[in-house]
Amino acid sequence: MTNPRTIHIHRDKWHLAWDHSIEPVASIESGETVSLDMTDSSCGQIGPDSTVDAIKNLDFGRVDQVNGPVYVAGAEPGDTLEVEFLDLQPANWGWSAIIPGFGLLADEFSEPALKIWRLEGGAEGWAEFAPGIRIPVEPFCGEIGLAPGAPGALSTIPPYRHGGNMDTKHITKGARLFLPVEAPGALFSMGDGHAAQGDGEVCGTAIEAPMQATVRLTVRKDLKINEPQFVTAGPLARRTNTAPYYVTDGIAPDLLEATRKAIRHMIEHLQKNYGLSRADAYMLCSVAVDLKLCEVVDLPNFLVGAFLPQSIFTA
Amino acid sequence: MTNPRTIHIHRDKWHLAWDHSIEPVASIESGETVSLDMTDSSCGQIGPDSTVDAIKNLDFGRVDQVNGPVYVAGAEPGDTLEVEFLDLQPANWGWSAIIPGFGLLADEFSEPALKIWRLEGGAEGWAEFAPGIRIPVEPFCGEIGLAPGAPGALSTIPPYRHGGNMDTKHITKGARLFLPVEAPGALFSMGDGHAAQGDGEVCGTAIEAPMQATVRLTVRKDLKINEPQFVTAGPLARRTNTAPYYVTDGIAPDLLEATRKAIRHMIEHLQKNYGLSRADAYMLCSVAVDLKLCEVVDLPNFLVGAFLPQSIFTA
Repeated sequence: MTNPRTIHIHRDKWHLAWDHSIEPVASIESGETVSLDMTDSSCGQIGPDSTVDAIKNLDFGRVDQVNGPVYVAGAEPGDTLEVEFLDLQPANWGWSAIIPGFGLLADEFSEPALKIWRLEGGAEGWAEFAPGIRIPVEPFCGEIGLAPGAPGALSTIPPYRHGGNMDTKHITKGARLFLPVEAPGALFSMGDGHAAQGDGEVCGTAIEAPMQATVRLTVRKDLKINEPQFVTAGPLARRTNTAPYYVTDGIAPDLLEATRKAIRHMIEHLQKNYGLSRADAYMLCSVAVDLKLCEVVDLPNFLVGAFLPQSIFTA
Repeated sequence: MTNPRTIHIHRDKWHLAWDHSIEPVASIESGETVSLDMTDSSCGQIGPDSTVDAIKNLDFGRVDQVNGPVYVAGAEPGDTLEVEFLDLQPANWGWSAIIPGFGLLADEFSEPALKIWRLEGGAEGWAEFAPGIRIPVEPFCGEIGLAPGAPGALSTIPPYRHGGNMDTKHITKGARLFLPVEAPGALFSMGDGHAAQGDGEVCGTAIEAPMQATVRLTVRKDLKINEPQFVTAGPLARRTNTAPYYVTDGIAPDLLEATRKAIRHMIEHLQKNYGLSRADAYMLCSVAVDLKLCEVVDLPNFLVGAFLPQSIFTA
């Protein structure tokens, strides 16, 4: 038996749809390792020197490309593909934006905005939002998915039962993700590097960053799942959950409206107490504030909490 | 000036509605302390020796009583009442139940169930669910609220902008909660002791327990809020966030349906991997599994995660 290989996927090997007819860029055995060099989620439309014009001119049809697909020998529909995250290394810059028409409060934020971040210290580093506000880097990929079984091309913007744009901040280095296989060979792709994000990603963008990642892909015949499941590497939010949180609640009979209210209240809190602009507060929520469903049973009102880690304030 | 007093509220001083016409049981100055001795949320209908018959015969109209109200001198509509949690001590027993017609999956769980817990070690103790599954106690009160400004009686079951059944597990000892004052004197009440709960309280009950609590009530003229806000005592989920989590996702165009799917998948996971009955798995989710809004922007699909702390498994 040969040793497991590491297969490299070049940064130009991307595609823009979940579609089992897309030709694989590599073929591996179960248990082998793949390293991917991924452009940021704008597919290179935004760079470290971009201005807000890049958002005004953004071609949304070229957003959220994913690198791959990788064919995993032996993976059959009904199996599960285990994705083990061996390494995640962001570039030394990233971006966040308000993209008109996109985001939890799209109706309330019609003006485009762009923030360029400098990322210092790599995967264990920091991103300074403003003097006194520092976001710890906890890198992951927003897009992790397999090809669907049904014919046709699905947009890479939403998540699906076979993965896709999961935007789940807890799938960090050391995590193991399980995805249901629908197409022969699984056809794994990944992209959308995030240096940090809050649960919810409310303005629609995290700290978007080019990313180098290494994953081990293993076919699991013993595991049957309906939708993605994962095991985290350890305790949650290791780098932000180190101090108290300030929490604003949203209470409403509609769960989505309760979510919106919680974020509106947090934006007000950040404007009033930290002197941020409304747009900056919204983007800070997206990269640092965690949305929790505190109660979903005391009808007719749901309660959603927006949790701001006080650990990001260094002043 | 006299020293701040501690006023004691007897366990029989409860009421069953949020209504500013209910006569206060005590009147205090801003900055004084109140200690409350609270019966469990069944208002004494369930005891440590109860069987499932107690659920079959439960008078839901007597559920979620709150102790008070306490009139706080100087509190005017538009002010904020700060509630500082100085101490929370659960009794040495508690209960969880499936109450037909109530809960996130009410349509799927029609049979009543009751679990009686023994609570060992007080506020820093443990509740054994089954051999090898142990829930750390992190006590809080589900019901914390003020009287509404509008006339009439509101049910204690939902939360409102002036508080009520918030069922928020992070409001533990050392937390400071801010509630908007609507009626003169604020008219503070509290109840619904919980020894532990997951974010969501999905089956509708936590580890329900009689509770002794001490809170400091302070009128804040400098703070204007629309709905409850709070500061936690420190990092979140201090006693459960000590090891990896197992996570099941729910993905759907409707946020509530995504939430339900995440819990359905977690129930299946607990049945398959830990040999629990479906009803036991549902109750374990309610007391230990945290619901997070991982992404709320990648339309048309939301992604909700149900997070199971592996730290509860001791075997």
